[in-house]
Parts: sequence; structure tokens; C-alpha cells
Amino acid sequence: MKALGQHLLIELYGCDRGILDDLEHIRHSLLHAAELVSATIIDVVAHKFEPCGVTVVVAIMESHLSVHTWPEYGYAAVDVFTCSSEPLTSEIQDYLISRMKATDATSVELKRGVLAGRWAAVEAVPA
Amino acid sequence: MKALGQHLLIELYGCDRGILDDLEHIRHSLLHAAELVSATIIDVVAHKFEPCGVTVVVAIMESHLSVHTWPEYGYAAVDVFTCSSEPLTSEIQDYLISRMKATDATSVELKRGVLAGRWAAVEAVPA
Repeated sequence: MKALGQHLLIELYGCDRGILDDLEHIRHSLLHAAELVSATIIDVVAHKFEPCGVTVVVAIMESHLSVHTWPEYGYAAVDVFTCSSEPLTSEIQDYLISRMKATDATSVELKRGVLAGRWAAVEAVPA
Repeated sequence: MKALGQHLLIELYGCDRGILDDLEHIRHSLLHAAELVSATIIDVVAHKFEPCGVTVVVAIMESHLSVHTWPEYGYAAVDVFTCSSEPLTSEIQDYLISRMKATDATSVELKRGVLAGRWAAVEAVPA
């Protein structure tokens, strides 16, 4: 099924609470995750919440990556959305699990922009 | 089912191609969408691609919103991820459909951070 983008939504449970509250650790992890999917970075937003929790969003030429953490619950929500044609491998999930020291993880991969019958019409338009 | 966050993934098809390539229009639309979900904005990244397409990512205290557009296909991928306890209504989808002049749209809503049996353990921990 042809699609413009791939979007991986990862739930990380039982993570190290100190790590989830460490903005530099999370920022570095997401930037390395961006490298793993061969992304070109446009800009990064990194924010530390009080009393705890961090948000990091990385806008990339190929869409975006994000992490939001809830250290009090040992939980992090990670998104990797890319329009690169390279398939997302399990390497990126394994990397994030390892970096957050998660005991449990689930993920959902969605295809974004499945143009279906629109492809034919689109491709018939002269460039 | 108790969850830390709600994540709405919206696919907009058959949009106005000029609008999808208009960075200010898309930026303004996403900022207004953030208002509709009563979000508090941390920072905004807005980028125009050559020859066409835009990306806008809004980091909010409650998580993030994003839009990535493919004007050449009349397609936009919109994400609204919020940990607000207010339920996401159809108003935000109707607003985005109207702003992008989409002829077709689909959406998926995911619960993020469904702690399941972990809630009891978490809530037993003294503050």
C-alpha cells in the first residue's frame, strides 16, 4: 500500500524516572533517533516542566519526532513520523527502549497519506 | 479507559493546493487549533519547503500539534496530541477541514499512556 509517510507511535512503560526527567538525556536520545532514520533536522524544541516531565519535538525535513515524558508514571510517548521511503526498522524502537530503560513497550505504525485512487490522477498531471 | 493523553491523527485529502503551500495560513490555522483545545503554547516551528509544502509544529504544555502538507497531492497530515482531560470534540476536525478546504478526511484517535494495572501502583505511592 503506497503512502506518503510512516508514523510510529511508541508507548514506553516502566522507564527510569530520573532519565525521563533529564532534559539533556531525552533531547540527545531524540536527536540520535532522528539520525537513525536518516533525518535532516530543521529545528528542536526542548522544554522541562515543573515539578517534572519533559517535552522534546524535533522538526525534520521528513516530518517530525517527539517525546513527552511523565516521570511520575515511568511513562514516555514517542512519535517518529517520516516521509522517507526507507522502512522504519525495529532498531529505532530498541534504541529508545534502551535509552529510557523501559521494562515494557508497545507500538503502532500507521501509514499516513494513503492516496489510494488519487495516485493515478496525481501521476497523470504533467510536472 | 483511563489514559494520560489523547492523540488525534487526521488525514485531509483534496485540499486547496494554494492553501497547503501558504505557510502563514497553515501556521495561523494550527495556532487557532491549539486555542480550540485550550492549549498553552511553548514554541512554534514553521518551515516552507522548496518547491512546495510546509511543516508547522507547535509544542504545547499539553504535548504537541503538527501539520505537514503535500500541496502537489492536495494532502495534509495533522496531529493533535494533548494530555488535557477535556475530550477532543469534532469541532477541531471541522475547523481544520474548513481551513484546508478538504474534500475528504479520515481520523484516528489513539489513547496514549494507558497505564492499566500500573495506576493502582502509581496511586499507592505517597506524593
